[in-house]
Amino acid sequence: MPSYSAPVRDYQFLLHEVLGVSQYSNLPGFSDLDKETLDAILEEGGKFASEVLAPINRTGDIQGCTRHDDGSVTTPDGFKDAYKQFAEAGWMGLGQDPEYGGQGLPHILSLAVAEMTSGANMAFGMYPGLTGGAVRALVAGGSEDQKQMYLPKMISGEWTGTMNLTEPHCGTDLGLLRTKAVPQADGSYRISGQKIWISSGEHDLSSNIIHLVLARIEGAPDGVKGISLFVVPKFLPDANGDAGERNTLQCGGLEEKMGIHGNATCVMNYDGAKGWLVGEENKGLKIMFVMMNEARLGVGLQGLAIAEAAYQNSLAFAKDRLQGRSLTGPKNPDGPADPIIVHPDVRRMLMDQKSFIAAARCFIAWAALQADLEHNSDDADTREKAGDYMALLTPIVKAYLTDKGFLSASNGLQVFGGSGYVEEWGMSQFVRDARITLIYEGTNGVQALDLVGRKLAMNGMRPITSFFAELDACVAEGGDETVKPFLDAVASTKAALKEATDWLVENGLKDFNNAGASSHDYLQLFGLTCLTYMWALMAKAAAKKAGDPFHDTKLKTGRYFLDRWVPEAGMHLAKVKAGAASMMALESEEF
Amino acid sequence: MPSYSAPVRDYQFLLHEVLGVSQYSNLPGFSDLDKETLDAILEEGGKFASEVLAPINRTGDIQGCTRHDDGSVTTPDGFKDAYKQFAEAGWMGLGQDPEYGGQGLPHILSLAVAEMTSGANMAFGMYPGLTGGAVRALVAGGSEDQKQMYLPKMISGEWTGTMNLTEPHCGTDLGLLRTKAVPQADGSYRISGQKIWISSGEHDLSSNIIHLVLARIEGAPDGVKGISLFVVPKFLPDANGDAGERNTLQCGGLEEKMGIHGNATCVMNYDGAKGWLVGEENKGLKIMFVMMNEARLGVGLQGLAIAEAAYQNSLAFAKDRLQGRSLTGPKNPDGPADPIIVHPDVRRMLMDQKSFIAAARCFIAWAALQADLEHNSDDADTREKAGDYMALLTPIVKAYLTDKGFLSASNGLQVFGGSGYVEEWGMSQFVRDARITLIYEGTNGVQALDLVGRKLAMNGMRPITSFFAELDACVAEGGDETVKPFLDAVASTKAALKEATDWLVENGLKDFNNAGASSHDYLQLFGLTCLTYMWALMAKAAAKKAGDPFHDTKLKTGRYFLDRWVPEAGMHLAKVKAGAASMMALESEEF
Repeated sequence: MPSYSAPVRDYQFLLHEVLGVSQYSNLPGFSDLDKETLDAILEEGGKFASEVLAPINRTGDIQGCTRHDDGSVTTPDGFKDAYKQFAEAGWMGLGQDPEYGGQGLPHILSLAVAEMTSGANMAFGMYPGLTGGAVRALVAGGSEDQKQMYLPKMISGEWTGTMNLTEPHCGTDLGLLRTKAVPQADGSYRISGQKIWISSGEHDLSSNIIHLVLARIEGAPDGVKGISLFVVPKFLPDANGDAGERNTLQCGGLEEKMGIHGNATCVMNYDGAKGWLVGEENKGLKIMFVMMNEARLGVGLQGLAIAEAAYQNSLAFAKDRLQGRSLTGPKNPDGPADPIIVHPDVRRMLMDQKSFIAAARCFIAWAALQADLEHNSDDADTREKAGDYMALLTPIVKAYLTDKGFLSASNGLQVFGGSGYVEEWGMSQFVRDARITLIYEGTNGVQALDLVGRKLAMNGMRPITSFFAELDACVAEGGDETVKPFLDAVASTKAALKEATDWLVENGLKDFNNAGASSHDYLQLFGLTCLTYMWALMAKAAAKKAGDPFHDTKLKTGRYFLDRWVPEAGMHLAKVKAGAASMMALESEEF
Repeated sequence: MPSYSAPVRDYQFLLHEVLGVSQYSNLPGFSDLDKETLDAILEEGGKFASEVLAPINRTGDIQGCTRHDDGSVTTPDGFKDAYKQFAEAGWMGLGQDPEYGGQGLPHILSLAVAEMTSGANMAFGMYPGLTGGAVRALVAGGSEDQKQMYLPKMISGEWTGTMNLTEPHCGTDLGLLRTKAVPQADGSYRISGQKIWISSGEHDLSSNIIHLVLARIEGAPDGVKGISLFVVPKFLPDANGDAGERNTLQCGGLEEKMGIHGNATCVMNYDGAKGWLVGEENKGLKIMFVMMNEARLGVGLQGLAIAEAAYQNSLAFAKDRLQGRSLTGPKNPDGPADPIIVHPDVRRMLMDQKSFIAAARCFIAWAALQADLEHNSDDADTREKAGDYMALLTPIVKAYLTDKGFLSASNGLQVFGGSGYVEEWGMSQFVRDARITLIYEGTNGVQALDLVGRKLAMNGMRPITSFFAELDACVAEGGDETVKPFLDAVASTKAALKEATDWLVENGLKDFNNAGASSHDYLQLFGLTCLTYMWALMAKAAAKKAGDPFHDTKLKTGRYFLDRWVPEAGMHLAKVKAGAASMMALESEEF
């Protein structure tokens, strides 16, 4: 059975040495967070992940969820108890508002703990993950009454939450949605319609489930301009705010999926269910997108988390499995063969994983810090810049880390050879679980289009101009001969990205299909540039402690990234500049 | 449920127009094969695949195989009947020796039919596929008595076959194998030991199963020099050559796998089972490798076959699913939305699949023709050159087509969005089935090492020198402005491959780890060069019929390949030249 050990040491390096969180002690959330407290939370979160969540990950995959005739759903063995412990330990409220019972700790810390949760058990992590999304939507758009009614119980974990967007005929294109809301005399609405692919839509972990549902109020305009958001609880809160009468909504079925079997993916039928408007009429999408943007960071995080879990297990296998001899002479002469970690091509797969994971984790932590600065900095310019970065980089975190996270997990499976294909070893589950991350919360193609179609041009290209300046400043700051190659790589990937950006600006406006056609490779090039920048930040920090084993290993890992990842920049640039002509040349019937 | 339509038209183009098989009518196998016969066989093979095999593909995935307490194994519903039809129609003997009941048709044709079989139902195709492997081993190494005893019944499909190499502690490193063979007074041997991952090891499709088993004769040398090959039937042939007494071997268990559930992957326990030596003592590996080289072509073919199946279904979905509007204005103004095929990023995934598949199929057909020329040409130089090509290119066919075939299937799944992740739609099965092809018959890492460590240096580098000359000649022949860009791409990828080869020769000998470290990217670059060459061959043929829709579409598809695949050459070259330093820098304990 696969095991999981939380990357606590790596987070300590990132938070204390690379990002220097102590400099933000003047900000809310950071103020109570001295190094000891921070480390203690990381350690505890890691322990919970390894000891409580990892052991039920494979059971969850094998058993999956079960729907009963009455529409109720049972989660796999151990999930209910683990969730109880999770809620009681307060993990749900880590990053949430203290006013509603949260601990108010920074994103950078709650995301670190979320990586551990997802790495140990991605399907489990989705229950609190979706609740977090619903909480954010209520924070963003709910009335004070609604906040008082729902947030404390959701933040304590007593109640969980969901997001209901997709319908059978509409996923990406929400303008087509048909679920109806009919106003009632008491100010509530009756919601009717079918939603599909509702993660955590029904289960036995919590005493109530708070559904946030997109629907169209009778008479509202067609398309995206007529969509409103509703809060629709499974049990209607009674006068004391406790779960009361059963609402007329039900799980109509569970999807059989490729992975994340431990999470219930539900068809949800709303049959005149009672709900209340969140925010203004016809402005539901805006609130949903506030939440979705944060959820996208969470999905990028899952890409990293699964990559880490797969890496750990492939590394253990590579050290353990004896097969063949090193090309340069036996390394285990007393054994029947050498451990396969001696073989260069096994190293390639391990180093590809390791060097990606280190940079991806840094990128997640860096992005989480931007989220904290956006919300909490006392300096307006800092808030603006951080907000720009979050807008610009969210699609990249989501798509690049999941594209590469999936391939990384697949590399981990490959290290196992035939055993990787046998379910018992658990590597297949990582690959199957990871595959959804390229799809949900907006497919990676949608992310790429969001990047080139919306984020690039925002505010007169202010976000990317600001990001380029940050890269230039990093290079200009210089460094010793250890750091220099990393800065050179930042300069070269940035130059490629700049050229690609200029090409897009010139050609994407002339023909929108050029923007669409090049969006994937543009996003890939952008992601590579970001990870290269992260390596430069890590190299600068590690170089200060050169000679120390942890830091030397970090630098060696970074050099592999320079050798084996950075060369992809030129390829992506060439593909960006190929544009739409050959991609769109075929008529539909010619395929 | 996914459907499958055999690519008959494409094979007609390849066989008649690109490779011009009619010019080989002087060779055995080709002589009876006029255009009508050839087309009829392709049509019939395609029909069988679509109508008999495809409909039971998903059932096979859902039900899998069942082992009973007595060690017997039941295949999924419909497999037994389909196999009966397959055998009765004579598909098993298509490419086999007429002396033993085969039809003696060329490889190029039997591989075309094999693609259809695997594309429609990969798990099913492995039963005859493994039988074909066992037949080849017996042809290569068996005595005349053994051939008479086994081949007719295997070629008719009455009996099936398997290959038994792997043991729990040894896969790639066969030198470690422990299965024992004890000589008996009657000239037979008693075989004892455990073999794992034996595809088609036990099932209910045939009245006997002929196991080819690698084992070590008592007292034989250690390592690979003491391995012999044995034929070990499930039922011992009686005096009439029919299945008689039950042998002491049994399926001890089935593996739960990520995919290919319809094929029984068995633990096989040999408990003093009666077997007979095939070929000479201690020379078993050589025979096994004759067969394995052909099996590797078959695995490359599976990569292509699954890619085709996934492509067809993703294309149908992309034409059917309405979501969003074209960036350049509505294309389906009367509908609620446009079909997603209008979106450039969906096109990218479709064109990536389509342009890969066309070239991969050409590569398989071209390689199969080399196999035919190697065995049947009346010209010694042609035989030598074709043999060189087969040796050099087999690891590339196996690894490149499966690496890219897996990604291609994953792209197909991505086109489906969330539906791709739901098992009901069948795309998950393609991805899960395809994943094994990167592993079995020698992992893709082993293929890369075979290429750089063995095949490159063979006969004073004669094979690659000869292949480079072929590429140069293709470029030198020239072409009109339609063909010219394809020739330029052959020249540029060949130049990169030549530079990488020179680097390897210089640095791989200095430090073997350099060869190992660069083997993966070298193979990728080689594969890309081969597919580019295939596109040049196809472009030359298609250009002759410019104006005809089929041929124009082919040229357009090729131009996409030039734009979006060829730019990967420079990246692979840069990675090759990075060598071993950063890849091998970490001590094992530093990971």
